Amino acid sequence: MPLNILERHTNKIVMLTLKDGRTLEGKLIGFDEYMNMILEDTEETRDGQVKRLGTVVLRGNNIVTIVPK
Amino acid sequence: MPLNILERHTNKIVMLTLKDGRTLEGKLIGFDEYMNMILEDTEETRDGQVKRLGTVVLRGNNIVTIVPK
Amino acid sequence: MPLNILERHTNKIVMLTLKDGRTLEGKLIGFDEYMNMILEDTEETRDGQVKRLGTVVLRGNNIVTIVPK
Amino acid sequence: MPLNILERHTNKIVMLTLKDGRTLEGKLIGFDEYMNMILEDTEETRDGQVKRLGTVVLRGNNIVTIVPK
Amino acid sequence: MPLNILERHTNKIVMLTLKDGRTLEGKLIGFDEYMNMILEDTEETRDGQVKRLGTVVLRGNNIVTIVPK
Amino acid sequence: MPLNILERHTNKIVMLTLKDGRTLEGKLIGFDEYMNMILEDTEETRDGQVKRLGTVVLRGNNIVTIVPK
Amino acid sequence: MPLNILERHTNKIVMLTLKDGRTLEGKLIGFDEYMNMILEDTEETRDGQVKRLGTVVLRGNNIVTIVPK
Repeated sequence: MPLNILERHTNKIVMLTLKDGRTLEGKLIGFDEYMNMILEDTEETRDGQVKRLGTVVLRGNNIVTIVPK
Repeated sequence: MPLNILERHTNKIVMLTLKDGRTLEGKLIGFDEYMNMILEDTEETRDGQVKRLGTVVLRGNNIVTIVPK
Repeated sequence: MPLNILERHTNKIVMLTLKDGRTLEGKLIGFDEYMNMILEDTEETRDGQVKRLGTVVLRGNNIVTIVPK
Repeated sequence: MPLNILERHTNKIVMLTLKDGRTLEGKLIGFDEYMNMILEDTEETRDGQVKRLGTVVLRGNNIVTIVPK
Repeated sequence: MPLNILERHTNKIVMLTLKDGRTLEGKLIGFDEYMNMILEDTEETRDGQVKRLGTVVLRGNNIVTIVPK
Repeated sequence: MPLNILERHTNKIVMLTLKDGRTLEGKLIGFDEYMNMILEDTEETRDGQVKRLGTVVLRGNNIVTIVPK
Repeated sequence: MPLNILERHTNKIVMLTLKDGRTLEGKLIGFDEYMNMILEDTEETRDGQVKRLGTVVLRGNNIVTIVPK
């Protein structure tokens, strides 16, 4: 069911918290069974600093939480 | 049996302690065999700071303990 | 054999040391093959601070040692 | 689908963020199912210091994010 | 062969060094294929402090070295 | 394909960056599917200090990057 | 091939570097497919301090490098 909810949020904005403390906010384009993800129009926040990254491929095992916006 | 108890607490409030030191408290909506979970109306506490997150998808391998409320 | 000893201590008090430095002491209600556990009447100790948690579901891979009381 | 996007970016420039804090930027020559990768003309950045590494073979489990350029 | 040597040391004293820096010394009562172990009459040493723990069930993946006494 | 490139660099000099921050530079003699490797005439660099190690067997899961020389 | 070289060094002296920063030097008596090892006449060095450990069983996943002497 956690993977189903990701399906419902495809093409919507999600905010990801990563194990290295960064947060990524972007449009969820796709994902696989390992929760590897593709985001578009991604903004990274690290220690309060915001950086535009555009398209990002993310390895799922670095994700802690996913918050749909 | 630990997964059974989660089933009995679906739609109830749980408090999760994560490996990164955060706690999440919210309504348990669903989970899978990896203890990936969906929470609703989630509040995150980090270093005493509380933040409303709403719906959260959580990767199970970041969970340390689950306390049903 | 380590899982057998857990079976013999079901419904008895156990003290768990976790990787994050916390100790949990409570009644062992159940466990599975991954050493995921359910404790009842659990007390958590962190840096000398004691907190009553009640029922706790614990992911097995966070456990270092289990001491039956 | 995350692996598909890598296929579309073969022979293009990608920027990788690694778990040890380094970033690598280079031409993606190949990858396998574990996201092990080969980069060419790679530049490493660590704490603001840039170093030319040329060809790099990278173990996939060290990758956090991949940003196609 | 490393598991065979453990078999020969069953009911003998072993000293374990754990990943969290503790050492445990006790009588090896049993173990399984994951090197999960049961010790009896166990003494824990942490930062030079010794504590009697009695029976201990230990998850194998926390062990670094095992020294038969 | 990442394993193929290692095959082409057998008996050539490679520089490895490890997770513990050390770098090893030596002749690649062999490797297996886990990227366990054998190096010869190996020099280790740790915090700017260089040490001759000769033959080294290396567990693959400690490797971050491999740079053929 | 990395496991083969260990076979050739059985009953010879090896120096192991572990993930926790210790080095162990001793006679390699045996090993299995996980690189779990048995050493005899082992000396441990930690922060420049040397300690005689005698026989040591070592879990393979704690090993970084193996240097035959």
